[in-house]
Amino acid sequence: MITKQIVLASRPNGMPTLDNFRFENVELDALKADFVELEGLFYSVDPYMRGRMNEAKSYVAPFEIDQPIEGAVIAKVTASESGNFKPDDIVMGWLYWQQKTISNSKELQKIDTTIAPASYYLGILGMTGLTAYFGFTDIGKPQAGEAVVVSGAAGAVGMVVGQIAKVYGCHVIGIAGSDEKAKRLKEEFGFDEVINYKTTKNINEAVAQCCPKGVDIYYDNVGGEISDAVIANINFKARIVLCGQISLYNSKEVPTGPRLEPRLLTKSVLMQGFIIGNYASRFSEGMSQLGKWVKEGKLKSTETIVHGFDKLPTALLGLFKGENTGKMIVQA
Amino acid sequence: MITKQIVLASRPNGMPTLDNFRFENVELDALKADFVELEGLFYSVDPYMRGRMNEAKSYVAPFEIDQPIEGAVIAKVTASESGNFKPDDIVMGWLYWQQKTISNSKELQKIDTTIAPASYYLGILGMTGLTAYFGFTDIGKPQAGEAVVVSGAAGAVGMVVGQIAKVYGCHVIGIAGSDEKAKRLKEEFGFDEVINYKTTKNINEAVAQCCPKGVDIYYDNVGGEISDAVIANINFKARIVLCGQISLYNSKEVPTGPRLEPRLLTKSVLMQGFIIGNYASRFSEGMSQLGKWVKEGKLKSTETIVHGFDKLPTALLGLFKGENTGKMIVQA
Repeated sequence: MITKQIVLASRPNGMPTLDNFRFENVELDALKADFVELEGLFYSVDPYMRGRMNEAKSYVAPFEIDQPIEGAVIAKVTASESGNFKPDDIVMGWLYWQQKTISNSKELQKIDTTIAPASYYLGILGMTGLTAYFGFTDIGKPQAGEAVVVSGAAGAVGMVVGQIAKVYGCHVIGIAGSDEKAKRLKEEFGFDEVINYKTTKNINEAVAQCCPKGVDIYYDNVGGEISDAVIANINFKARIVLCGQISLYNSKEVPTGPRLEPRLLTKSVLMQGFIIGNYASRFSEGMSQLGKWVKEGKLKSTETIVHGFDKLPTALLGLFKGENTGKMIVQA
Repeated sequence: MITKQIVLASRPNGMPTLDNFRFENVELDALKADFVELEGLFYSVDPYMRGRMNEAKSYVAPFEIDQPIEGAVIAKVTASESGNFKPDDIVMGWLYWQQKTISNSKELQKIDTTIAPASYYLGILGMTGLTAYFGFTDIGKPQAGEAVVVSGAAGAVGMVVGQIAKVYGCHVIGIAGSDEKAKRLKEEFGFDEVINYKTTKNINEAVAQCCPKGVDIYYDNVGGEISDAVIANINFKARIVLCGQISLYNSKEVPTGPRLEPRLLTKSVLMQGFIIGNYASRFSEGMSQLGKWVKEGKLKSTETIVHGFDKLPTALLGLFKGENTGKMIVQA
């Protein structure tokens, strides 16, 4: 059987372009014992994928030139040689960007679409939710009444972090890139204040106004000058959770900025980077907590769904332009 | 009684000079109940004092213009109206830079000079030792076999950190500013390797050679470009202990450099600033452990002693030129 796949055609220099991707037809392998045939339904596009487009090894291996892009995918079983899966089962896996694919059944996880829509397992009930949960609770160590600032607040992770912070009784300030996003974060997702970084002249001052006693937890998804402004307001014994640095991912030069250490030192601040894999042994705890909150209505989800497999590269590039509110997903 | 004191004459702009200090005669108060009269023996000069010369509040209040400088001092009781102290007792306290002074006895701590020389209580058995101990063990969380880099390694704190790291079975690399310091750190204090940052062209490469698997703990006393070189070699799940940033204390502009967060993120690194006051409730534990190691010969001390009360300002300025090996102390 022939299917369509998307490969990395070339490595980007700075901001990626559509030319860095190529569509190809590929012949699927025959279905062997323990393998299943899958049809992709929902494809996750995530900022971390930009790092894999570079040659340098980061915490995950780089994508290879002329090889398919890979990511989290929700798929439907269309044929099965595994006792654990039957046609029409819905599964999640780390799969190639292919319309159809053959996968070892041991690398797939069945998902229960009676609890939540399938796409939630790429977002609030998937890596996104776990990233928000473990980074915020395990590194942030929130206390009721503390001031929490979340950058990239309208992004997939940021939106969940802000809601979890409200569950903990924190005062939650988001930073986002449009008035529409700001309005939704406040009205639908319970953020106390949202700073529009594109229209606010002095972000440092805006953060100071929202957090007159200083910022106790900064959950950072973006880095760069927004972080400079937040960290200028950091409180004694604050925690800075480094989850993403999307504003820097497309830099051609090594990004520079004010040195942080003098302030982290005098304020006894903790800054901790993490990747979600560090918490693999606690995923079931996280999933169960997130599921409970979703059920109780304490965590809401929103998604930006782009339609059509062919739009995958466009959707990925859209992340760097802030085109998404909540999780960005491509529906086949 | 008239005595001599040293006051802050003006705030420095960048590197402090002798003109920022002024000697004055001052009349001592009469000795009241619970107070003692003291004669200064050993005066501690420390990098953190530079911060107190600025107007801005840091973690300790700034020195006031025309008011005496204050710091840790070992003194001899010369007259007492306190039941707890008698003449010739040796005490430590946070005292003005005065030759003689009147102090509330409740703010003094008697020290036992049969265990160690009096000056040790300003260094390895004082705040210096505690700073090394808590920063390294509580934040660094050392494991045997890990690669530890200490900047400012020949300084008061750095030299103790390196020796504690050897007690924990770590591979210890110091960074210091002369071949003579490097030789002493290796031969007398057990450091495995020492990089002379003044003569090494590529510190990044030198660190990579000393730590082929990456740096697991970086105990930072200096900041700036030396830190950039160390952090370029940081290992997955490493810990960076921010203790001092002496290379930046005299900057007239906000110091800039490469942004660290992308690397801290992808490597899951913890960076933690601290001040020794955070550990006040554990000082007795620290003192007892340090005393034990000193007794067992596992921790050695060295001091740079400058003679003469009048040399206090000169000795303080000398810290920023690397004139000390080990603790810098002024003996009256």
